[in-house]
Amino acid sequence: MNTADKQPWSRDEFEKRLRDMECYYHINHPYHVMMYQGELNKAQIQGWVANRFYYQISIPRKDAAIMANCPDRETRRLWVQRILDHDGYEDDQGGIEAWIQLGIAVGMSRDEIVSLKHVLPGVRFAVEAYLNFARTADWHEAAASSLTEMFAPRIHQQRLDNWPDHYPWISSEGLSYFRKRLSEARRDVQHGLDITLDWFKTREQQEHAISILKLKLDILWSMADAMYLAYILDRPPYKGINETK
Amino acid sequence: MNTADKQPWSRDEFEKRLRDMECYYHINHPYHVMMYQGELNKAQIQGWVANRFYYQISIPRKDAAIMANCPDRETRRLWVQRILDHDGYEDDQGGIEAWIQLGIAVGMSRDEIVSLKHVLPGVRFAVEAYLNFARTADWHEAAASSLTEMFAPRIHQQRLDNWPDHYPWISSEGLSYFRKRLSEARRDVQHGLDITLDWFKTREQQEHAISILKLKLDILWSMADAMYLAYILDRPPYKGINETK
Repeated sequence: MNTADKQPWSRDEFEKRLRDMECYYHINHPYHVMMYQGELNKAQIQGWVANRFYYQISIPRKDAAIMANCPDRETRRLWVQRILDHDGYEDDQGGIEAWIQLGIAVGMSRDEIVSLKHVLPGVRFAVEAYLNFARTADWHEAAASSLTEMFAPRIHQQRLDNWPDHYPWISSEGLSYFRKRLSEARRDVQHGLDITLDWFKTREQQEHAISILKLKLDILWSMADAMYLAYILDRPPYKGINETK
Repeated sequence: MNTADKQPWSRDEFEKRLRDMECYYHINHPYHVMMYQGELNKAQIQGWVANRFYYQISIPRKDAAIMANCPDRETRRLWVQRILDHDGYEDDQGGIEAWIQLGIAVGMSRDEIVSLKHVLPGVRFAVEAYLNFARTADWHEAAASSLTEMFAPRIHQQRLDNWPDHYPWISSEGLSYFRKRLSEARRDVQHGLDITLDWFKTREQQEHAISILKLKLDILWSMADAMYLAYILDRPPYKGINETK
């Protein structure tokens, strides 16, 4: 039977299928499993924070790209909140600054973090794939790619719960990003989910929405893979190769 | 001393600096070192051929993107040869078809290769970064990113020289891509090098050209990293994770 001939999933079934993709969320990646189990050393925590910073600073650009493609004012009025959350607005310093505070709490300087000098090519290319998807896809599709936020509160809560035990050398003020995102992500999910459940109607379209969410999961997993090879398996790019100058 | 105040390199010195970047070429990546030493098994050879196919099919799009940004007819008249070489023209089946023949020679079916089902997310994102750079950069800069071709004849010649000994199960007709590229790459290099040596004038611009070549080297290295993690270290994405459906 051709996909096009299949019955569409009900709204509840479609949402369940999207939520079932959690098995591919990077919470299950060996890097994050080790983080959760308290098995990372300081350099491995720093490597993750420094690399993930590149993702953080790309989020508002990704959201601006979605808005640039979105002619619906009501959607933009809600979506802009994501930019305000990350860049900060009025008295709120925003998520990017909170991530820098995390970087400082794990022992790096502000300059070291914002220089991006630790960002691995594999992380850079994965993050840029996300930004590029948002620029070129229909805005409903780009909104659907944000739905990994459904899975984020659990990973943030885990860190808040067990980092103080596993990584007592990280000050609790450093964890404010995770606290901040707990509530924000829940609110963002509802909006992204409404757009997705409303827009993808036929079974073929619904399965396409699943594949878009999978692309985003691939991006997060690929970032963790690059960090795993570099910092856990100690095979950073060009290891042992010196410039011949 | 500010970079902008430094004396530009002479044309010969600039070319030498570009050629010195060969130390970062993926010929030195552990995956390719193992390939050269005859240490890859059949699945590891197949994994490389299937993934690299995604790069091959993206090359003519990359070259079309450069031409789309290039108002100079003389440059386009030369650059179009790259598209003809890869896509084929008249009686020549072209490099993409030659790569499919390589895939068949290493034991895959045509459908398996062109389905792209073996292409790893990390490889996909790296290749797309190359395509995206060509779309968005000034065309001289995009042309400079092609200069890894300076280093390609050596890796192709190595394969022609030692695959028959190391991998006798691969028929020699399967290696026609490497033979074909030996002469083509040498011709392409001269054109890309002329554009680069002419265009980047100040020391700051010349150093920028080096950083562009490094970006392309990062792309090739990152592709090999993703394959190394998946096929040599046996940690493909989502290993051990099943869909919960």
